[in-house]
Amino acid sequence: MPRFFVSSADLEEENGTTRIVLEGPDAAHISRALRMKPGEELVLCDERGTEYRARIESAGGQVVCTVLDSAPSETEPPYEAVVYQALAKGERFDTVVMKATELGAARIVPVASSRCTVKLSPADYAKKRERWQKIAAEAAGQSGRGRIPEVADPVRFSDAVKEAAKADLPLFCYEGGEGPGTVPLPELFPEKTPKTVAVFVGPEGGFEPSEAREAVGAGMRPAGLGKRILRTETAAPFVLASLAFRYELAGKDGGNEP
Amino acid sequence: MPRFFVSSADLEEENGTTRIVLEGPDAAHISRALRMKPGEELVLCDERGTEYRARIESAGGQVVCTVLDSAPSETEPPYEAVVYQALAKGERFDTVVMKATELGAARIVPVASSRCTVKLSPADYAKKRERWQKIAAEAAGQSGRGRIPEVADPVRFSDAVKEAAKADLPLFCYEGGEGPGTVPLPELFPEKTPKTVAVFVGPEGGFEPSEAREAVGAGMRPAGLGKRILRTETAAPFVLASLAFRYELAGKDGGNEP
Repeated sequence: MPRFFVSSADLEEENGTTRIVLEGPDAAHISRALRMKPGEELVLCDERGTEYRARIESAGGQVVCTVLDSAPSETEPPYEAVVYQALAKGERFDTVVMKATELGAARIVPVASSRCTVKLSPADYAKKRERWQKIAAEAAGQSGRGRIPEVADPVRFSDAVKEAAKADLPLFCYEGGEGPGTVPLPELFPEKTPKTVAVFVGPEGGFEPSEAREAVGAGMRPAGLGKRILRTETAAPFVLASLAFRYELAGKDGGNEP
Repeated sequence: MPRFFVSSADLEEENGTTRIVLEGPDAAHISRALRMKPGEELVLCDERGTEYRARIESAGGQVVCTVLDSAPSETEPPYEAVVYQALAKGERFDTVVMKATELGAARIVPVASSRCTVKLSPADYAKKRERWQKIAAEAAGQSGRGRIPEVADPVRFSDAVKEAAKADLPLFCYEGGEGPGTVPLPELFPEKTPKTVAVFVGPEGGFEPSEAREAVGAGMRPAGLGKRILRTETAAPFVLASLAFRYELAGKDGGNEP
């Protein structure tokens, strides 16, 4: 069933019925591209992770829908994973946004680290962010996410580390070498599903040992992802896949009945 | 230390010393790009997963090296994972080859499935294969692999399924819907590290239910990767990350000492 993202503020309660009006590109997509007609159903997801099954009452430039029922999204992970990713050159950050969205990230925070070669002016960044937010929205729709991850404003390394350290599972992905020793990822995963996870990933070339020491000093856990060297855009997907494998799929939810 | 891939057949034994001569692009890279000089050391990896620490005796158009010692590669996974990937349009197969190499695949087999929209002539394919093998070689070098995964000739779905079913852990990634029910990935992973793993991934749009039934009939296990819909190029990396998390990192090997 087609899925669209809405704001919970746009739901209108009237005589015991909940209605919502879709406009702009979503309405055009429903009416023209999908050629949906009154009586057909679609799924609307709000920013709180609630999914609404809705019936189209009228289509066209505006699409009026009535909500039939609602339930918490079943495709959102049981943890809130925030990806802190060093700004990368070219299309690498695009890839991270797309893959992190597919793999269940709740939020993506660009980080300016000292080895990071990308310097953006606020105006450049506003453009970039709009682009990344659009990539996240598309990937969320395509992968059946219950919400669109937010792409945040860029944060300085020291501030990002302090924020990330507050997570139940604050993972600082580090290749090692000088600086603090790492612990293999599975050993850092607690028995019980953590409520919040931070996945901190460095730029191409890795973090400086001093940055790793600062992160560990702030309370982050230095995580080892193995002996192969992962590209900067592969590290967060690796950790997000591991989280899904360990906390989301282990159980009955990953399978389906015929 | 710079890493180069060699064939074990090129090692020459003479008076108790093992020598190897590098030519062509590798020799040019060592002599010109890296400006390495006699006395400096590099790492050579052969197709069996052995790493040789070697000293340069003479550089130039040919680089003559003496082997100092050898050991099994420490960056190869403890299992042989073969990725069977439906041929995909555009650059998606490139991405799969690159990421599967980074994440430890031993071999990548292109599969022609019935929903697969890519039809290649043998001549087209030979060109593509050369390109993919080059991507694999670059990714292997960059990620510190002990060997270059082989990109195989394309195989028809029915033949690929029969071959893949022979693996200790024959995973058929299936989104479900009609056809056989799936089992969540972690439930399919045995306690003991499997020697051989097959990771079978469908095209955009998934496998036909009849294909899934054929695979299960041949002995493959229908694996559920969760409720979010992964793109075709994300599925194999997801499974390879899960394998690394479960069988390679769980233990001491994923961490490093300061």
